[in-house]
Amino acid sequence: MVIELVKEDVFGESSPLGLRETKFFTFDSLHLESGEVLSPVTIAYETYGELNNQKDNAILICHALTGDAHAAGISKETGKLGWWEIMIGPGKPFDTNKYFVICSNVIGGCKGSTGPGSINPNTGKHYGMSFPVVTIRDMVNAQAKLIDHLGIERLFCVAGGSMGGMQVLQWVYSYPERVKTAIPIATTLRHTAQQIAFNEVGRRAIMNDPDWMGGDYYGITFPANGLAVARMIGHITYMSDLSMKEKFGRKLRNKEKFGYDFEAEFEVEQYLKYRGETFVHRFDANSYLYITKAIDYFDLGDNKDLIKKFYNLKTKFLVISYSHDWLYPPYQSREIVKVLKYAWVDVTYCEISSTYGHDAFLIKNQEQEHLVTHFLNNAYSKGE
Amino acid sequence: MVIELVKEDVFGESSPLGLRETKFFTFDSLHLESGEVLSPVTIAYETYGELNNQKDNAILICHALTGDAHAAGISKETGKLGWWEIMIGPGKPFDTNKYFVICSNVIGGCKGSTGPGSINPNTGKHYGMSFPVVTIRDMVNAQAKLIDHLGIERLFCVAGGSMGGMQVLQWVYSYPERVKTAIPIATTLRHTAQQIAFNEVGRRAIMNDPDWMGGDYYGITFPANGLAVARMIGHITYMSDLSMKEKFGRKLRNKEKFGYDFEAEFEVEQYLKYRGETFVHRFDANSYLYITKAIDYFDLGDNKDLIKKFYNLKTKFLVISYSHDWLYPPYQSREIVKVLKYAWVDVTYCEISSTYGHDAFLIKNQEQEHLVTHFLNNAYSKGE
Repeated sequence: MVIELVKEDVFGESSPLGLRETKFFTFDSLHLESGEVLSPVTIAYETYGELNNQKDNAILICHALTGDAHAAGISKETGKLGWWEIMIGPGKPFDTNKYFVICSNVIGGCKGSTGPGSINPNTGKHYGMSFPVVTIRDMVNAQAKLIDHLGIERLFCVAGGSMGGMQVLQWVYSYPERVKTAIPIATTLRHTAQQIAFNEVGRRAIMNDPDWMGGDYYGITFPANGLAVARMIGHITYMSDLSMKEKFGRKLRNKEKFGYDFEAEFEVEQYLKYRGETFVHRFDANSYLYITKAIDYFDLGDNKDLIKKFYNLKTKFLVISYSHDWLYPPYQSREIVKVLKYAWVDVTYCEISSTYGHDAFLIKNQEQEHLVTHFLNNAYSKGE
Repeated sequence: MVIELVKEDVFGESSPLGLRETKFFTFDSLHLESGEVLSPVTIAYETYGELNNQKDNAILICHALTGDAHAAGISKETGKLGWWEIMIGPGKPFDTNKYFVICSNVIGGCKGSTGPGSINPNTGKHYGMSFPVVTIRDMVNAQAKLIDHLGIERLFCVAGGSMGGMQVLQWVYSYPERVKTAIPIATTLRHTAQQIAFNEVGRRAIMNDPDWMGGDYYGITFPANGLAVARMIGHITYMSDLSMKEKFGRKLRNKEKFGYDFEAEFEVEQYLKYRGETFVHRFDANSYLYITKAIDYFDLGDNKDLIKKFYNLKTKFLVISYSHDWLYPPYQSREIVKVLKYAWVDVTYCEISSTYGHDAFLIKNQEQEHLVTHFLNNAYSKGE
């Protein structure tokens, strides 16, 4: 079997899940929160493990801003490991020996699901900025169609960090009966002014780039400079002051003295430059606009209304935050917990101590593994 | 007298200092830290109050990144109040009835002092990016020439916030005998990786703008989009998560519903847009590059060496930080205090509680006024 033979990704790292291929599911239309209708809609997704006969072992993994459906294993297309390889696989927290794990690319994205870079069937051209604005709720409604398609009535768990965590919360909000357990990580009930502000600056950088051309750049050019700046801003917010100090400090690239010029002299400058430049090869600028906008729109509503909405909800929660995450600080996770507690919902909360910032949930750490493993074990063994 | 007649600025606010005019001092040359020589050098400055006969009542105020020499009174040129009007004037903390207050524009700036927008006498053209890279030390050395020119041997006080605070620290470092008291506010001994990162992204935004034209845009065009993005990033870092929440929250501009488009719909987006757009009318993009670079280079050295350097220094310090300042967080001010304490230097420290972020030192607050007033009173009454 090919899967057995190719266990190493392009960087020489191996995965017990071997080679994985992204699949596609297309359905007729989706009514969006804006009132517009998107049609047709394709969802790119991957699955790991097997759905059992009772169909009660399915876990939906939701990705963050720049993620994709390739959450684990080695991609047949890119040769790279999945973005949550540390968490998904046999014997791992999302244990593919026990659970059927699904990950799908969000609509509005650029990794196989319908987004601004897709062809608009009415015009035969790329949507560009004629693509309708989508919300987290729209993303979740599209995922629900995929879950229907897979014959799953109720998900054993929905889990994700950052924007993935917003989808988790939206799932419970929109489909409370369909989610047995939920793991929102490093996320919030609503986007704050500061969070909107960072996204807006990134969008401005893209839209200011002359190569953006009002979004109609496909096949002609690409707003690489603008998108790189947006990514650089993002990267600063994903790390912490402390982790940047530990990783870069004031280290210079390759000389003992300052160059007294405007090249990237400090290691941190070079790192951001590299991150910006590589990102533009793997992400569509218009998708960056649409997805950040969906995040900015995210607001589950007033806490009082939420408590009513969630009152006596049967879904069990594990809420995780990270101590040095200043983009989605622990106080926002505690607010989720507070709302759930007031609504008499079963919730476990843990703030994991880590010098990494927001990105911490993507980096191997035993505490997160331990918490998720035991939370799932517990809920699964108890059945209904 | 005109000064008596015009006491209101363009916004209808008045100043007891009346109309003020920026003066200019030009000297032959300045040897820069990079090894280059800048020649000639003009320093724009303003003064408030009178130098006494003993010449022991002079206070030098140092401005932050986008400040200028016009610290107080109503500018004859722009009709606007000075940037530290709250702190400078008769009966105010920097009491012009008692003290002779000086504020000068930094070299590399664009408010009258020699900078990249000045004419290079060797070519007859604007310097642009041929302007030499300057450092905080170079800025201070240029100020020292002005202080010489004004016939002042020893400053009673050097004070400033943010980059102004770096100049304060550099003054004490470079000219310990010439500074009787020092007030560094919301500042640091060295720029960290995160601080460098934010500046670098701003610089990239400017340099990516096609209208930047390698810096040679004078009289032709202006990289307004790039500079606006840089300013927007800056503004986010000057406020706090909490102050943005209090000021904007998720408030929309003028409609009840989302527009589902990419206009600035949230108030915070509109605010940043406005701040970005107005900034480009008052600041030169190349100066933004040079001054942020000077800030990034700022590093007074290793703490151990600093303790040796400052050992038994006679300068008295008042160090102030702000609780919600995450750009120059209180821990950086405490580090200044620690170094000074280890060096047996007389230092008073106060962290002022404020929901404003870094900008707090520019906003009227009684605690800062009280602390500065009494610190100066005390030091002044004690004479030597």
